[in-house]
Amino acid sequence: MTAAQAREHFATARVARLASADRSGRPHLVPTAFVLDGETVYSVVDSKPKRTTRLRRLANVRESPAVALLVDHYDDADWEALWWARADGRGRVLDPAEAEARHAVELLRGRYPRLRAAGEVLAVDVDRWSGWAASASGDARPER
Amino acid sequence: MTAAQAREHFATARVARLASADRSGRPHLVPTAFVLDGETVYSVVDSKPKRTTRLRRLANVRESPAVALLVDHYDDADWEALWWARADGRGRVLDPAEAEARHAVELLRGRYPRLRAAGEVLAVDVDRWSGWAASASGDARPER
Repeated sequence: MTAAQAREHFATARVARLASADRSGRPHLVPTAFVLDGETVYSVVDSKPKRTTRLRRLANVRESPAVALLVDHYDDADWEALWWARADGRGRVLDPAEAEARHAVELLRGRYPRLRAAGEVLAVDVDRWSGWAASASGDARPER
Repeated sequence: MTAAQAREHFATARVARLASADRSGRPHLVPTAFVLDGETVYSVVDSKPKRTTRLRRLANVRESPAVALLVDHYDDADWEALWWARADGRGRVLDPAEAEARHAVELLRGRYPRLRAAGEVLAVDVDRWSGWAASASGDARPER
């Protein structure tokens, strides 16, 4: 899968998993709704179901901005249909009052009508797209 | 969601996402088939679709053993059905000739008849289960 194909696959998914790491290199992993705008992936904490909006992912990004986002397709009945796409990049935590954050929340609400945004927005500037598809394993890249 | 519930949800899933980090704290993220045996999550690289079995995830675990594994359920039509479960732990890379590795591959083949194991086995000894479910948000824990 080429970088362009990985980006395209990524953009169609409804949920991504966000990996960050703290200063000591301990990884943290959560699922997240997201929207891709150009080469930036935006996400925001949904207001309702969390007790706190002071989140580990945001603390990690402040300590250590390198993050990875993954989307994948799994089908027990058809391993030829398997694929995944990954965005590696650097995170920035945006104040919700910033113009970029307000724009991101608009895009996210357009994509997820149920989303009730609350608090800071995470912007991830992607510097590398990669991916893999079972049905085109000739195109698969070594995992790097 | 209690730790016991998170473990139970985790065990039922067919695919997990594995986050590791290199020495510099840069996270790496891939989907993986897995099996839970007691408090250890096993995975192995499928032989066919990769060009190389010398994988970033294994190099990372050798450099920095802290890893996280996530499973989640997403449903666009029903955000009340959303849940995720996470295993935080420490990884060990097993030589395929080791008894523990052979046992793990047997369990994995039992769970995934299509899996063709190749090379080293990743064992993750879980030291913390956590999770969240939209329908029981009273049980939700702050993200830590």
